[in-house]
Amino acid sequence: MIERNRCFANLTAGYLFPEVARRSKTYAASHPDAKLISLSIGNTTEPLEGHISNAMSDYARALATPEGYSGYGDEQGLSELRKKIAETFYAGIAEADEVFVSDGAKCDIARIQLLFGGGVRVAVQDPAYPVYVDGSVLIGAAGAAHNGVYEGISYLPCTPENNFFPDLTKVRDNSIIYFCSPNNPTGYASTREELGRLVDFAKAHGCVIVFDAAYAEFIRTPGLPKSIFEISGARTCAIEINSYSKPAGFTGVRLGWSVVPKTLLYADGTPVIKDWSRVMTTLFNGASNIAQRGGLAALDPEGLAEMKKTIDYYLENVRAIGKALSGDNFAKAGVRVYSTGNSPYLWVYFPKYTSWEIFDKILDECRVVTTPGSGFGEAGEGFLRFSSFGHHEAVNEACVRLSKLNL
Amino acid sequence: MIERNRCFANLTAGYLFPEVARRSKTYAASHPDAKLISLSIGNTTEPLEGHISNAMSDYARALATPEGYSGYGDEQGLSELRKKIAETFYAGIAEADEVFVSDGAKCDIARIQLLFGGGVRVAVQDPAYPVYVDGSVLIGAAGAAHNGVYEGISYLPCTPENNFFPDLTKVRDNSIIYFCSPNNPTGYASTREELGRLVDFAKAHGCVIVFDAAYAEFIRTPGLPKSIFEISGARTCAIEINSYSKPAGFTGVRLGWSVVPKTLLYADGTPVIKDWSRVMTTLFNGASNIAQRGGLAALDPEGLAEMKKTIDYYLENVRAIGKALSGDNFAKAGVRVYSTGNSPYLWVYFPKYTSWEIFDKILDECRVVTTPGSGFGEAGEGFLRFSSFGHHEAVNEACVRLSKLNL
Repeated sequence: MIERNRCFANLTAGYLFPEVARRSKTYAASHPDAKLISLSIGNTTEPLEGHISNAMSDYARALATPEGYSGYGDEQGLSELRKKIAETFYAGIAEADEVFVSDGAKCDIARIQLLFGGGVRVAVQDPAYPVYVDGSVLIGAAGAAHNGVYEGISYLPCTPENNFFPDLTKVRDNSIIYFCSPNNPTGYASTREELGRLVDFAKAHGCVIVFDAAYAEFIRTPGLPKSIFEISGARTCAIEINSYSKPAGFTGVRLGWSVVPKTLLYADGTPVIKDWSRVMTTLFNGASNIAQRGGLAALDPEGLAEMKKTIDYYLENVRAIGKALSGDNFAKAGVRVYSTGNSPYLWVYFPKYTSWEIFDKILDECRVVTTPGSGFGEAGEGFLRFSSFGHHEAVNEACVRLSKLNL
Repeated sequence: MIERNRCFANLTAGYLFPEVARRSKTYAASHPDAKLISLSIGNTTEPLEGHISNAMSDYARALATPEGYSGYGDEQGLSELRKKIAETFYAGIAEADEVFVSDGAKCDIARIQLLFGGGVRVAVQDPAYPVYVDGSVLIGAAGAAHNGVYEGISYLPCTPENNFFPDLTKVRDNSIIYFCSPNNPTGYASTREELGRLVDFAKAHGCVIVFDAAYAEFIRTPGLPKSIFEISGARTCAIEINSYSKPAGFTGVRLGWSVVPKTLLYADGTPVIKDWSRVMTTLFNGASNIAQRGGLAALDPEGLAEMKKTIDYYLENVRAIGKALSGDNFAKAGVRVYSTGNSPYLWVYFPKYTSWEIFDKILDECRVVTTPGSGFGEAGEGFLRFSSFGHHEAVNEACVRLSKLNL
């Protein structure tokens, strides 16, 4: 018999969200009358607007005509879409042929892990989106876990004490640094000065930044960078991944992209983009052509307006949740709400509880589902992540319930 | 600086089809009046029929309504679709929760390679679809190439001499065996007796068969198995991958599936499906919900009829090409055409030429693009693969040109 791939044995416990779902289901089963409201997973809830959905619908209908049909496209994405992404988001900082269209950021992260293989050093912000670590374990770049900490990973605590920007001296030379801004889960959007420090560090220490910009369109504070390539020098030390999931409501439609500058090189001088092209053409077959048409429409003026409207809707939820969590009952208990208004998430500290304790308490007493901060890493212990994805009515009802919570 | 992942350095030359495209483009550039006809890549050309495209179009339009919108679905696919795939193709041989919906077979192969990791032994049919080998190299399960043969891979020649069924004694114990039937590129559909031998061998030698059934719906000879799970014992030694690309014309839409039986175990007793679930949920985010609606419609009676009609169309091309290649000019030169009518491909032997020589000759003299057999493996040398994907008019014109070829 074939031996089990030991990397899988190294991966402990379930993925965070399945465990949240399990506890919610168990609770619902034993409280059949309870109407749970989810402020947990970052799953979009608002319908698409017409310009984007019509573009996909018309394209799908036309697939039944000789003129409208198309089979395999370029694995890297429609030329037209690569060009439009470059013009819309990277004017002057990246070219169309450095943009690779994909089926989403999570899948791109997995492919980036395959790109670098099991022999690299990995650094992650702590807390962090679980896929950076879990995927690193599965590819063999991290080893077994001891007390929830994997061998071979440098964890970089991002806490209120350091204003959510990590101490980079903990990063080993020649590491991959996963860096997410606006951050999931903390919501913090790094400043130009901070990202400048990150890039300078990466260049000085031979590191490659994998910059996860999936929430960039939530940035509302003027002057905050939306792309790592706005930072001088980043083109020699960074890859960016991005997604239509959150800004365009494409969590189910599936569309994202990566940017790999031609000027990013390995130690032997090989351009990283050469191997990335190989990954994308050999092991991937392109994003759905229907989704790509939606992606094109989303970058038309009408589409951009639709995306902004949808994001504004969720940011309104952020303000409502932030207000509820700043009520007397929370303030007296020393609860601290971290929200910069540049992300769909609120990161909230509860002094007297572990993350799962306060998760269970809020589930039980408010019938609101949240996400335990400890699921994102050790430095998330004591925190909850509140997601703003939801209908206003449901979110407002959750806020009313939270305002009555006894802490 | 980060060291380049040595697996990428191990991978030699370009992927086959980019090289075919390069030569075609070069030829077209120097012969601007030449009207090239492609019988090369297996890219579908015929429009979808209405039942399937309307289902996707309606679903995309409804994404703009509160009732019709959906965000993330289960990463493993819509429950309804998993159930329908199980009922349609695996009644009595696999369950819905053993079916995992994906964005296509190529991507599933890459994920299967990640599942087993770099420590496994690999056996492939020779010739074979390039991704089995190329992906194995990129994950580290194969080493450097010497004269086009990678270290760590067992190549199993499938030639007219062995009726395209390999000598299994060349497979090392505890190997992954990639097996494609109906085969790409040879077109051969293995019999029940042959697949029985394959399964018996795998069970006796601790191997796992990765059965690529992407062309199963082209089978027209009664009694030939369409799934490995029709073979007794396969549920303890096989994984199946399949795709909507060719039968439904979804090469651009992107939809496929894998089947991993709960009864398939690793040496330590861990069910393979446990780790496969982990791959699909941690490193993948589901196929596009629009594509999945098309996949559901394709399994309605109307959709199944539409798929059959489309496949019949391509099989008509197979007969036309087969007839052209059996003309006097080819017969006199000793050309042998292998086509069983159960696949979209014809596998054709040219005695006096290398694959690239005859590729260039047919490109130059007929202005028809084919695929060199040697690109699929050493045992493909001297062969060309003719693809039947094309409009009747273009294929018939190609046949006229081929009938005038001087060999």
